[in-house]
Amino acid sequence: MAKNKIVLAYSGGLDTSIILKWLKETYDAEIIAFTADIGQKEELDGLEAKALATGASKVYIDDLREEFAKDFIYPMFQAGAMYEGQYLLGTSIARPLIAKRMVEIARAEGAMAIAHGATGKGNDQVRFELAAAGLAPEIQVIAPWRLSEFRDRFPGRAEMIAYAEEHGIPVTASAAKSYSMDRNLLHISYESGVLEDPWYDASGEESKDMYLLSVSPEDAPDQPEYLELEFEQGNCVGLNGQRLDPLGVMEKLNELGGKHGIGRVDMVENRFVGMKSRGVYETPGGTILFTAHRKMESLTMDREVMNLRDSLITRYSTLVYNGFWFAPERLALQALVTESQKNVTGTVRVKLYKGNIIGAGVKSPVSLYNPDIATMEADPTEAYDQGDATGFIRLNALRLKVSSGVEQNNK
Amino acid sequence: MAKNKIVLAYSGGLDTSIILKWLKETYDAEIIAFTADIGQKEELDGLEAKALATGASKVYIDDLREEFAKDFIYPMFQAGAMYEGQYLLGTSIARPLIAKRMVEIARAEGAMAIAHGATGKGNDQVRFELAAAGLAPEIQVIAPWRLSEFRDRFPGRAEMIAYAEEHGIPVTASAAKSYSMDRNLLHISYESGVLEDPWYDASGEESKDMYLLSVSPEDAPDQPEYLELEFEQGNCVGLNGQRLDPLGVMEKLNELGGKHGIGRVDMVENRFVGMKSRGVYETPGGTILFTAHRKMESLTMDREVMNLRDSLITRYSTLVYNGFWFAPERLALQALVTESQKNVTGTVRVKLYKGNIIGAGVKSPVSLYNPDIATMEADPTEAYDQGDATGFIRLNALRLKVSSGVEQNNK
Amino acid sequence: MAKNKIVLAYSGGLDTSIILKWLKETYDAEIIAFTADIGQKEELDGLEAKALATGASKVYIDDLREEFAKDFIYPMFQAGAMYEGQYLLGTSIARPLIAKRMVEIARAEGAMAIAHGATGKGNDQVRFELAAAGLAPEIQVIAPWRLSEFRDRFPGRAEMIAYAEEHGIPVTASAAKSYSMDRNLLHISYESGVLEDPWYDASGEESKDMYLLSVSPEDAPDQPEYLELEFEQGNCVGLNGQRLDPLGVMEKLNELGGKHGIGRVDMVENRFVGMKSRGVYETPGGTILFTAHRKMESLTMDREVMNLRDSLITRYSTLVYNGFWFAPERLALQALVTESQKNVTGTVRVKLYKGNIIGAGVKSPVSLYNPDIATMEADPTEAYDQGDATGFIRLNALRLKVSSGVEQNNK
Amino acid sequence: MAKNKIVLAYSGGLDTSIILKWLKETYDAEIIAFTADIGQKEELDGLEAKALATGASKVYIDDLREEFAKDFIYPMFQAGAMYEGQYLLGTSIARPLIAKRMVEIARAEGAMAIAHGATGKGNDQVRFELAAAGLAPEIQVIAPWRLSEFRDRFPGRAEMIAYAEEHGIPVTASAAKSYSMDRNLLHISYESGVLEDPWYDASGEESKDMYLLSVSPEDAPDQPEYLELEFEQGNCVGLNGQRLDPLGVMEKLNELGGKHGIGRVDMVENRFVGMKSRGVYETPGGTILFTAHRKMESLTMDREVMNLRDSLITRYSTLVYNGFWFAPERLALQALVTESQKNVTGTVRVKLYKGNIIGAGVKSPVSLYNPDIATMEADPTEAYDQGDATGFIRLNALRLKVSSGVEQNNK
Repeated sequence: MAKNKIVLAYSGGLDTSIILKWLKETYDAEIIAFTADIGQKEELDGLEAKALATGASKVYIDDLREEFAKDFIYPMFQAGAMYEGQYLLGTSIARPLIAKRMVEIARAEGAMAIAHGATGKGNDQVRFELAAAGLAPEIQVIAPWRLSEFRDRFPGRAEMIAYAEEHGIPVTASAAKSYSMDRNLLHISYESGVLEDPWYDASGEESKDMYLLSVSPEDAPDQPEYLELEFEQGNCVGLNGQRLDPLGVMEKLNELGGKHGIGRVDMVENRFVGMKSRGVYETPGGTILFTAHRKMESLTMDREVMNLRDSLITRYSTLVYNGFWFAPERLALQALVTESQKNVTGTVRVKLYKGNIIGAGVKSPVSLYNPDIATMEADPTEAYDQGDATGFIRLNALRLKVSSGVEQNNK
Repeated sequence: MAKNKIVLAYSGGLDTSIILKWLKETYDAEIIAFTADIGQKEELDGLEAKALATGASKVYIDDLREEFAKDFIYPMFQAGAMYEGQYLLGTSIARPLIAKRMVEIARAEGAMAIAHGATGKGNDQVRFELAAAGLAPEIQVIAPWRLSEFRDRFPGRAEMIAYAEEHGIPVTASAAKSYSMDRNLLHISYESGVLEDPWYDASGEESKDMYLLSVSPEDAPDQPEYLELEFEQGNCVGLNGQRLDPLGVMEKLNELGGKHGIGRVDMVENRFVGMKSRGVYETPGGTILFTAHRKMESLTMDREVMNLRDSLITRYSTLVYNGFWFAPERLALQALVTESQKNVTGTVRVKLYKGNIIGAGVKSPVSLYNPDIATMEADPTEAYDQGDATGFIRLNALRLKVSSGVEQNNK
Repeated sequence: MAKNKIVLAYSGGLDTSIILKWLKETYDAEIIAFTADIGQKEELDGLEAKALATGASKVYIDDLREEFAKDFIYPMFQAGAMYEGQYLLGTSIARPLIAKRMVEIARAEGAMAIAHGATGKGNDQVRFELAAAGLAPEIQVIAPWRLSEFRDRFPGRAEMIAYAEEHGIPVTASAAKSYSMDRNLLHISYESGVLEDPWYDASGEESKDMYLLSVSPEDAPDQPEYLELEFEQGNCVGLNGQRLDPLGVMEKLNELGGKHGIGRVDMVENRFVGMKSRGVYETPGGTILFTAHRKMESLTMDREVMNLRDSLITRYSTLVYNGFWFAPERLALQALVTESQKNVTGTVRVKLYKGNIIGAGVKSPVSLYNPDIATMEADPTEAYDQGDATGFIRLNALRLKVSSGVEQNNK
Repeated sequence: MAKNKIVLAYSGGLDTSIILKWLKETYDAEIIAFTADIGQKEELDGLEAKALATGASKVYIDDLREEFAKDFIYPMFQAGAMYEGQYLLGTSIARPLIAKRMVEIARAEGAMAIAHGATGKGNDQVRFELAAAGLAPEIQVIAPWRLSEFRDRFPGRAEMIAYAEEHGIPVTASAAKSYSMDRNLLHISYESGVLEDPWYDASGEESKDMYLLSVSPEDAPDQPEYLELEFEQGNCVGLNGQRLDPLGVMEKLNELGGKHGIGRVDMVENRFVGMKSRGVYETPGGTILFTAHRKMESLTMDREVMNLRDSLITRYSTLVYNGFWFAPERLALQALVTESQKNVTGTVRVKLYKGNIIGAGVKSPVSLYNPDIATMEADPTEAYDQGDATGFIRLNALRLKVSSGVEQNNK
């Protein structure tokens, strides 16, 4: 009889290495190690060999960077998503893609389950599993950190290292970092360790080495750099005159943002599982894209469309943060967002300087801004009759006058 | 018989000087000149004499700065208001206060009308008049720029200057600026003139002299400066350990923000009267306050309260922008906002550096963040059982699985 | 040189007859009379001859009923639109269609303007003109009732009748009704006259003759009648097993609803132009459709999709009421609505009885309701583990406990 | 040493009787039986004796009806709450009150825990426990139906009856009903059993005996009955000229509604725990109150306040349904609602007839409806100039024209 198969989201770190081995033993199953290349860069080096050495029967390392940029990052940026006024959702948006590919592999391989190494306290477990539920309700999910038998077996790091050594799992002799991190094409997040104290200043000298994607504003060049972003229907399709696909855009923006100290955020946020936590993020390219996109919209988006879309950003962002990417309500919101972006086409010029993204001009072939109407000078088009404002104001004031009159009569 | 009286919102500029005289003649009325001191600084110098010289029968120059900070700016910042993702509403929030005082004066003086010099194309006319309607429906408003007889009399600047000279109105021999500006405690706005071209780069050398409240990031000190803001129930009540009233806070924050190149925004926005326009803003202190307030909330505000309040920011901001400050729906929203701020108490530390407001720590006696719960380490409080997450995720996934199953059956 | 042409929305009543003649004289133009057949029934009899007799150079009477049902009523009912909790928008939804056809005719005929007989106090003027603006910004609109020269010419009904007699305009010797009405496929609205007193009871004997589409509940049959409605993707496609197009559905539902005393609403509402007014509506078929559609959704719509859509009903309804049908924000909302209806397919059974639409069963091939999961009995599918609820509740309670604990510590 | 104490929400039914005994044995604790009188009527007869006979050490039967009406039902009806367009939240709103009193008793008695008999599949467990979490985070909750040891002990009804007989628990020899029910001052809900089939017609002869609060519309009197409701600030304070407290209002409305066949709803709804379920509700008085309240608002509530409040009904209703009554976000929303009701004062007249609540007039000393403004006749107050509408429409149309123009240029 064929053995059970489990597809494991594998990073090569201590946790998922241990889990790989533990799953194999516990479930008497073939473990298929899967790593999504979503822009972790050097973290991917040597992964395949390591997974095989640790006991994987098969290894998938799939380059999903283009899909990540095109089908996940871009639609989310069209929505103007930002969680709790600060976070650009760099980790949140990656999880559904990883889950999607895991499910595809599980189906292709005839695996009974997928497994991941996310803890029971974080958002990632939710994101993985809600995505899987929305895509493949029949597939089981194993989350060892939520299983008491696993937690009992590995109450601390010491037991994990002992287990690794015992089973010949290669453990990187990394100096234990005082925080954990997650990296992809959109960002790096840092949390835990010294960061758990919200009064701790993560912008200082002490934390300098933590940041991998950007210099600090203080260390950025003294010379500003101009950048032009070309948009079509809400998506950035070129930089400085050069047409680029979404992946190309993100890579170039990351390089520029990182160079100029752009996109660091240090915040306390509310996890879906109920507690607050402190996170530090580097999102150099995403921050430029976010800012430039808003500026492109300001010139080309109808006022009420913007008002409507803006009033839904909190909802959209919360859905993404909480892991409801493949949920029908996200799709319904996305339909609205897509419609809202039809006219968001043109060019934005920004100046990058020591952490700042300074607006330096915006233009569009489909601009809705008409200086002839807005001008305080005589209007050559006569599209606007100042006298019209009288009626406009009077009718807007009518209900206020009635209310106010009633109120005064009843004082 | 007593003469009619008209209370005029008077700035001392060419427009309201002309209007003062023109109203006096046209309506055969006593003109009471009123200027609200809401932080225009030197613009107020010599105003009283000028108004009397121009024909005013009486002059009010009222210091409303404290009221402006306490009853207008502060409640609005509790709401997290930002118009179209960029504008901190510096002009919008001042208009209702000016209108309120005009109405009070009009009632005290027995005036039949109030008048203002705002044009028929802008938002300010609406803000003045909706505020007046909500406070004193019986009082008439005269807006000369919307009257064809006035526009016919003054088709251009030349006619205005001629009229001024003819009537002995002192005209400041100011070098004609290539833009117009509006200043108060919260900000300066710039628009018109060269700014009407949205592709024009207002961050460059050419525009350097325009900015009065802040240096550019490039010209800001190379040395960062730390600042601690003390909050109580959503309001900033002290800086760097010193207790300050709202006016004191705003003045100090303006000084610090201006010094460090903070708070410039250059945007295209949608006016209530229907067209897009381009505005440039300097809001040094407000930008610090806005950022720090969000950080204070991140530590002390319940997740769902924040979600609810955030989902209403677009609506609240639009109300303020459009001039509905004294409208009952703004009061209803404010009641929600006030309730939402009950626990927003504590200290925020930021680092000011060349346009950046860098979070550098947050703490509170009523913090809702509990590192013992959030930690990925063992939880000493045992407030959180990782196994609980399994049920949490399963029930959240249930409807997704059902939907997905139905969908797959019907493919 | 060719004469100017004006397309007039013509009803055959006194007002538009007078206007036809007056426009012709005043603008020295050819008047093209246009009447949209949107279900007014007998009101259309003899219209063409009358228009020509009154001076129209050409007459269009276009049957738009199918388009009205399919492209206007149906999408609006998918949205669950109801204005101010009571009004099914029967008049509001018709105006954009009429304007659309007027604009088409104007373009085809090379007319310079369109004209209508709506007053300056109502919503219809706004709806006509905003629709025209959104479709054909170049076309001028003439609204005689807003022109002082027209109002001065016709200060009262006497002058209108005199003018009609003078110009040989046939005036129907109708007993002056004590209210005005507007009829189409979706409803009849009544307002003005005796109805202006909101304390007036329009459900009594005295008003009995006013209602044309329905009997009163008291006069409805003593015998209930069952009805099955078939839905596909949110649209009703059949009744009692018979497949029908949207027009057929509306006509049959009107007949059934009217017979059973269904769909009368008597309300005070807020007009877009700023005042409250009192209206009485008969919407027999629409009320059945509205109720049945909600019941269909209850079985087939995902919870969060419904929550999202429902939270936007106020906005959608206000847009339709205010005349923003052809506005980009309505299109964006509609995209969301369309997406939300994908699974709204199945059968609803209702019992019609003396004003009541009583739910009597609902079923669907794509039902999201699974009694095996919901049952309080043992669950044969084991899709639901009651123990999961513990974790679900605990994590939902976590933030409440933290807040509550902080509050108690600070009492 | 003192024994542990557990406060049990006790109904006297088989489930909570078994649970009483089982808790006592399992936890070796004193069981304090608590029953909230929230209007269950005869269900309360003999409860105290029964609880003591079953082993309770102490029994609380507290009359909470007045508090229920005043502090729970009334604020919720001010909000216009209705879940998923149909359900008036009769069960949902009672649970937090019960939990509040349980917690008070637990604190007064020094009990370590509270317990309830709600199942792991329903909403009530969530409502009880979230309320308790928000009020008393330190108190433990025991939910036997979610404990596998309890479910294993009582896999079916047979085991429960055997256990009851064995322990001398009095079991009512009730004919097993084919559904379960929950009754209070606001409603009775029915679910389970035959109702689990959503195609089952619960309006027919077969279900006739199920309904306890109302006759069917068919069986209601042939004679309509007029009713006047007096409102002050959104609360009903009197009926037919007689001043009544909230409890008195609810009781009288229940009587009248029940007599006239009002307030039955049969629906499929979405539970918070993730599945759809079918419920049938009788809410005779609440339905009258809901309808009349809306009519009172229509005359006295500002348009935009209504729009704002209405746009939040979905959110408010979902909070109540899901059990977040004592959550800070509900309090924030309630602050807005309270503010919105300030002017909702006056009299509503309705006609009750066979399931219908027919509006028959509304009046108010603070009415915002001014027929002189709304009338199509000449306006004696001249508060409204029809010409104003031109400017109003033009400025509202401006952005539509600009958008439309851009679109046409780019076709």
